[in-house]
Amino acid sequence: MRRGVLGRGVGLSQRVVVVGGGFGGLQAVRKLRPAAVDVTLVDRQNFHLFQPLAYQVATGALSPAEIAVPLRWVLRRQANVRVVLAEVTGFDLERRQIVLDRLPNGRRGVTLDYDTLVVSGGSQYSYFGHDDWRPHAPELKSLDGAVDIRNRILSAFEAAEVEPDDDLRQSWLTFVVVGGGPTGVEMAGQIAELARDSLRGDFRAIDTGAARVLLVETADRVLTGFPPSLSHKAERALEKLGVTPLVGHTVVDVGADSVSIRSGSGEVEEVGARTVIWAAGVAASPLAADLAAAAGAEVDRAGRMQVREDLTVPGHPEIFAIGDMVQVARSDGTIVALPGLAPVAMQEGRYVGRAIRNRLRGDTTPPFRYVDKGNLATIGRSKAVADVKGIRVSGFPAWVTWLVVHLFYLIGFQNRLLVVTRWTFSFVTRGRGARLISESAAD
Amino acid sequence: MRRGVLGRGVGLSQRVVVVGGGFGGLQAVRKLRPAAVDVTLVDRQNFHLFQPLAYQVATGALSPAEIAVPLRWVLRRQANVRVVLAEVTGFDLERRQIVLDRLPNGRRGVTLDYDTLVVSGGSQYSYFGHDDWRPHAPELKSLDGAVDIRNRILSAFEAAEVEPDDDLRQSWLTFVVVGGGPTGVEMAGQIAELARDSLRGDFRAIDTGAARVLLVETADRVLTGFPPSLSHKAERALEKLGVTPLVGHTVVDVGADSVSIRSGSGEVEEVGARTVIWAAGVAASPLAADLAAAAGAEVDRAGRMQVREDLTVPGHPEIFAIGDMVQVARSDGTIVALPGLAPVAMQEGRYVGRAIRNRLRGDTTPPFRYVDKGNLATIGRSKAVADVKGIRVSGFPAWVTWLVVHLFYLIGFQNRLLVVTRWTFSFVTRGRGARLISESAAD
Repeated sequence: MRRGVLGRGVGLSQRVVVVGGGFGGLQAVRKLRPAAVDVTLVDRQNFHLFQPLAYQVATGALSPAEIAVPLRWVLRRQANVRVVLAEVTGFDLERRQIVLDRLPNGRRGVTLDYDTLVVSGGSQYSYFGHDDWRPHAPELKSLDGAVDIRNRILSAFEAAEVEPDDDLRQSWLTFVVVGGGPTGVEMAGQIAELARDSLRGDFRAIDTGAARVLLVETADRVLTGFPPSLSHKAERALEKLGVTPLVGHTVVDVGADSVSIRSGSGEVEEVGARTVIWAAGVAASPLAADLAAAAGAEVDRAGRMQVREDLTVPGHPEIFAIGDMVQVARSDGTIVALPGLAPVAMQEGRYVGRAIRNRLRGDTTPPFRYVDKGNLATIGRSKAVADVKGIRVSGFPAWVTWLVVHLFYLIGFQNRLLVVTRWTFSFVTRGRGARLISESAAD
Repeated sequence: MRRGVLGRGVGLSQRVVVVGGGFGGLQAVRKLRPAAVDVTLVDRQNFHLFQPLAYQVATGALSPAEIAVPLRWVLRRQANVRVVLAEVTGFDLERRQIVLDRLPNGRRGVTLDYDTLVVSGGSQYSYFGHDDWRPHAPELKSLDGAVDIRNRILSAFEAAEVEPDDDLRQSWLTFVVVGGGPTGVEMAGQIAELARDSLRGDFRAIDTGAARVLLVETADRVLTGFPPSLSHKAERALEKLGVTPLVGHTVVDVGADSVSIRSGSGEVEEVGARTVIWAAGVAASPLAADLAAAAGAEVDRAGRMQVREDLTVPGHPEIFAIGDMVQVARSDGTIVALPGLAPVAMQEGRYVGRAIRNRLRGDTTPPFRYVDKGNLATIGRSKAVADVKGIRVSGFPAWVTWLVVHLFYLIGFQNRLLVVTRWTFSFVTRGRGARLISESAAD
């Protein structure tokens, strides 16, 4: 079925197809609101995930629906957009078509025509080439990953409660977080708080406060995207919470009930641990490799494809690629090293939306420039680090900044209200209201 | 491993084991708070589900964590209780032990000793002996069932949006609810509102308002637990919402893409429908049959075992059985027909808690008597029926009563606040904030 079964959207002459409803794709679509174009947004999932708060779902502080908004609902008043749920499995650049699989009606190989294509596939975690570790060490990029982690963490405490053997019980109470970036730091801090605060008093046979939380980072400090002074502050804050930051250490094996960790001196220790959370080694979405192959371009070691400084694919001005899956190359050939953060993808998305509108008017658009508004990471209750244009803040003021920024970018007034309600309760009672173990995933 | 591996709880001499943390079991446990007994609550899940609102999760109005509270959290301040996650797979009445399987640490066949046992296993839906219908027609008794139904309903609209074939599209837009009790009526009303209000404007290719919602009930009216006048009011309210109530009709076959419905005159019509929701034919938990077999008792056609009017198992004064899985027989042999409702189970649970405390003091307890406080069912936005001690109310006053009663019985101040927030937004915007299609279940 190589016909455009999906046909046209709203029937305007310029057809823009946006692949991916994450931070970049959604901003591109929204910027196209006033444009006389026919926009189709394709995503595998029916919601936009506010990924920076996924770790709070993973520790039962928030409920999935509070950080995920239906794409249709976000775009309900933008009449020139339709949303299609599907997986993109092919690019035919000559025919200007993409191929869709796994449509909700069960169809496969459906084609969709475009005049302009925007690909924003995001990234996922690489397991350093060890895909066999994946089943033992779920990741936090997706909502399903977050729910899986929540089920595992809560079940581990349940298992420890009924486990008579001391060594086995200790392995149920040992949590290993791999990767000391913002996600890993936040995750480790939250597990420690869960064990020491939220769950205290809930169990009878175990002392949840005795749980071990190891944060393994290959570099010599956590949060390498921040200045060293803030990294060291973060490490001390983590230690206070009860996390053991193992900087200069590398995970060399992950099994069902243990993790092998190599220290800087080369010694390997096998740690009994039933719960491992993966937050290291980011790799571009496979869409980058597919698109690069179709365009005759190459991808780097992290799977990212190079785009020009107007964010188009070389040789294909009608195709934009943005977000974590690309690297921007200046016209002089130098690569702009942009971090894999939501603000980067959002600015790129808005740039692409503007660029498409400019083209319709026959105008050109100056090259994309990222405006760095700062970097934020939270460590636990009342603690965070912030690096805003060289101004370094830590502790409570940074934490308040973190709160305000995250609430501001969360989509939907209702979700903001619900999240504030949950956070207020958590702050006052140290409890976590969304501590469900789903049956299906626990099976 | 036939030893009591779990050992004692808090070490008091009287060991009370409560099986099931639903409405009945939880009330029994709470009533035992001041008693000098060692209580163990066993449940397969780590949360108490407020089942009367499960249909709102199934239509994306509420998020799972808003109607489910962790059992440990509910009981955190009751020092004489411990919670054990496990499935009960055997009763050894002679040794006064129950056998537990699927513990969170992977152990099986673990035994747990009791002096007094309370079994509150609840009920599930029977498929009229057609278990092959189950995969095509999920039920609303569990939280996982509700999430599965939510995924199916939302995916059906997504499928219709991309389906070019008229007949297939219509079958994606046809929803069949089997069973015209309160759950079926609420479910059908909510699907109609979802299609006509919440989703309107979200789709481009389909008119969601054209969705068909059929409510199939074998009896000659819906809500047979209510007086006929209220049933007829409910039917008219359903019709106004866009539901077609097929009273006097029976489902005779359920397939992946169609349902066969027999009318009162005996004619069978096959209706193309991709989404079928099961809310008929309640059967007792299999624990009733297991316990009855161990006690040498029998079960009725619905799988319920008979208990004496003090809610003990005949011949075993140390075992109480309560809730949907039992029928109470008076000392003169007459059966008390109690409906399978939360208030019945709650009153029975509290009675058992009191009875155990009385026994510790050497006191006897008069037979259990159910106090009927009335019957409520909601049909949609601003509409409900109520039958309180013969006073029949319908429309807005009944709906407000329904709201207040459900908020009152919901556990946890935080959840009440979150639910009120969601309901207020839904009422004002006609939207539904928890419309996620989970990836795992959609696969």
